[in-house]
Formats: sequence, structure tokens, C-alpha cells
Amino acid sequence: MASVFNTAVLLYPGADVLDFSGPVEIFSTTPPPDTPKSFSVTTFAAENPLKAANGELVYVPAKSLDDVAASLVDYDILVVPGAWPEKIAEYVGGETGKKVVALVKKFSELPPRKEVGKRVILSVCSGALILGYSGILAGRTVTTHHMCYELLGEIIDKEAGGDGKANVVKKRWVDAGKTESGVQIVNAGGVSSGIDASLFVVESLVGKEKADWAAEIAEFGRRGQDEAWGVKST
Amino acid sequence: MASVFNTAVLLYPGADVLDFSGPVEIFSTTPPPDTPKSFSVTTFAAENPLKAANGELVYVPAKSLDDVAASLVDYDILVVPGAWPEKIAEYVGGETGKKVVALVKKFSELPPRKEVGKRVILSVCSGALILGYSGILAGRTVTTHHMCYELLGEIIDKEAGGDGKANVVKKRWVDAGKTESGVQIVNAGGVSSGIDASLFVVESLVGKEKADWAAEIAEFGRRGQDEAWGVKST
Repeated sequence: MASVFNTAVLLYPGADVLDFSGPVEIFSTTPPPDTPKSFSVTTFAAENPLKAANGELVYVPAKSLDDVAASLVDYDILVVPGAWPEKIAEYVGGETGKKVVALVKKFSELPPRKEVGKRVILSVCSGALILGYSGILAGRTVTTHHMCYELLGEIIDKEAGGDGKANVVKKRWVDAGKTESGVQIVNAGGVSSGIDASLFVVESLVGKEKADWAAEIAEFGRRGQDEAWGVKST
Repeated sequence: MASVFNTAVLLYPGADVLDFSGPVEIFSTTPPPDTPKSFSVTTFAAENPLKAANGELVYVPAKSLDDVAASLVDYDILVVPGAWPEKIAEYVGGETGKKVVALVKKFSELPPRKEVGKRVILSVCSGALILGYSGILAGRTVTTHHMCYELLGEIIDKEAGGDGKANVVKKRWVDAGKTESGVQIVNAGGVSSGIDASLFVVESLVGKEKADWAAEIAEFGRRGQDEAWGVKST
């Protein structure tokens, strides 16, 4: 039986809808006929129900933050979406947000589950700020939403208690390297870049064919790490 | 005071997450500083809560189907996401689905609200099948998810009681023209094409500058109507 990567998608009040819906779409793509699925997807949050940033989309998470914290070792991929930076700052300043930051840090210290051999943290958009607050981005080449580059660097420095030696770059996504225990950190740029980064993670874990399949189903032309999003004529 | 386009996003069990989350993201983009918002976004469904197609995302719609049906004239944009075709066939065969199909048809017969002067139905992905079942696509050039081209034609023919004279084309999106009362019908192709189509609607209603702003915030490079989604090297 092929291994399934258990994917936990963090939700929290004010999280950006496309930041987490893009990865959910990609990781839950129905596989080709007669092919076993490679990922299972679970959402979790401390709040229930909770309202996302956009429109009036209100969610009932599948699991609580405490549930996932208690069985963190069972999850192989942790997806951390973004929100307005002020919202994130306020959130991580509170009791619940501190638990989220602690969960991210704990996840980064877990060795990969034997059955699958790999463990990944994927931040999307300003979700990288949450990783920054958890102190796991020091010394890495990282990215985030294009309006948050400077702020991310500041947070990394602050958590490092000085120069965090991070290199914040403008990319669609960045493979920010592995933690000591072997957790791969991937940062997506803003919003829709989370789709590209998810496809990169799919390709890294289960191969290009499955990533291309998911992109094809979503009619999503995969974009390169350096591909611009500037205005272009339609 | 600038007019605001009231946008109602249909949810139903098994609806594809990115089909509706993409449009929600675009229509609810925070406008540039000191610029009034152009769109308000409301979700609605007959079911509450309801589970989307992907992962374990469970939603609490902001309004009920009956609420929106009772005040349909107040909405300017109706977004209809897709699902697996078998799910849609099953849904529209039931009592609730028939109400949804009737709502789409009724919306298509309403003249634009005076305050904004325009009214739009946007289907995303196989959401076009629901428009097909409502009988409003006969004689039009239309599109849908690339796996549903043939099925959409068959549904349009069936609802027309013969040759529906529709032209199903492979496009990112299609402006399928206006109904007698002046409702513009737009079909997006599959899944992520809904983002492009939403940006097209934004541009049509409030101008290119605002559409480009929304794309920039989402780090989404806008794609042309004919732009392919075939596999490309990353």
C-alpha cells in the first residue's frame, strides 16, 4: 500500500481564503483512475466556527488545535496560511496564537514519520510571519507576500535576538532548507503562489507526474520560482 | 458614493473549493488606500453546514437559499461553482437542486439593478452545467471544465428539447453574451480559470486598474482567454 501524507491545514480568524484553499485544492486532487491517493487533508483551528479574511466565508474546522497538537507526530505536512500582518501580530500576541506558534515550532522539531520518510512545513503568503515568530527561519533564504518582505526580516531578527541572518527574496516559492530533525521548510509567496508551492511540494514528495496531473485538473499553468506576476495585457 | 456590486456566491455539498474561493478572493480584495470597495460578497446555500468537495473544508453559509431567493433582485453578481458532474446531476435531480436551478433562471431574467446598471452570472468550472440545466445557455458560445465540454453540450441540447445551438469552446473564460433582460453570462473554464474570469468581470464592471490591483495583491499573473494550461517545465 502506498503511503499517504497526512496534511494538516491551519485555519484561524482572518486567514486569507485563497492562501489555504489553493493548497487544499491541490493536496486533495482526485488522483488519476486506479491510482491511490497520496495525501489526506485535515483542517484544524482553535476557533470553531471561524471567519476567514474574505467575503463571508465561515468555516467549521475538522479538528481542534488541541486535537492536532496531541497527535502532531501523525501529520506529515503542515500548511500555514497568511492574513493581514496586523491580524497576525495581534493573534500571536494572544494565548491561542502563542499555542499556534508553539505547535509550528514543535512540528519543526519532529523527525519525519517512518512510514513516509518526509515532513514538510509549507507557509503561504504572510503565513511565513508565523514561522518567523516561531524562530525557525533564522539563517534561511525565505519568502512571503511581496508586501511583507521587510516585516518578515524584522520578525526573524527579533526572534533571533539580533541579526537573524535570513535572506528574504522575491520568489514564487522558496525551499528554505531542512531543520535539524529533517523537516523541510517551504515558503510560498503571496496568495496564489501557494498553488505553485503546493505543486512543488507534491512534486518533491510523490513526483512530477502527480504534480502535473493536479495542475492539469485545476487548469493551472505551473509557474516558475522566478515568474513575475506583474500586470500583463489580456 | 460609488455603487457596490452585491455578489452572491452559491455553495452546495461537493462544490469545488477553489471554484468558489478564487472568485471570493478576487471580489473581496481590499481596495487600494482611500478607494471605496466595489464589491460585497455573500455566500449562500440551502444546506448549513455543508462540506465542499475537497479535504475536509466545512462551511457555514452566510445566508440561506430561501433568503437569497427572496431578495434576489438585490444581488448583481451570482457566482455558480462546479462539482463532479455526477454530483451535479444528482443534486439538480433533487428538490433543493431544482430550487437552485430555478434561482439561476430567475436571476437571468432580472434587469440590472438601477444603482449599478449591470448584472452578471459567473459560472466556474462545471458550474456551467447548472446554467445548462437552467436552460439559459442555448444558442451561446460557452465553456466549462475541460473534462465537461461534451456533457455541457448534451445538457444544453436536452434542455432545449433538441439542438441547443450552443458552441462549447476551449477557453479560460467566455463572455457568453446577455440575456433578454440584460444579464451578462460569463463562463470560466476549470477551477483556477475562475480567478481569471473573476478578474475579467471586475475589469468589465469597474475597470482594468482595479482588476490589475486585485491580481497584483494575489500575486496572480493574469492569463489570456486562450492561454493554455498544459504541462510546462518549472
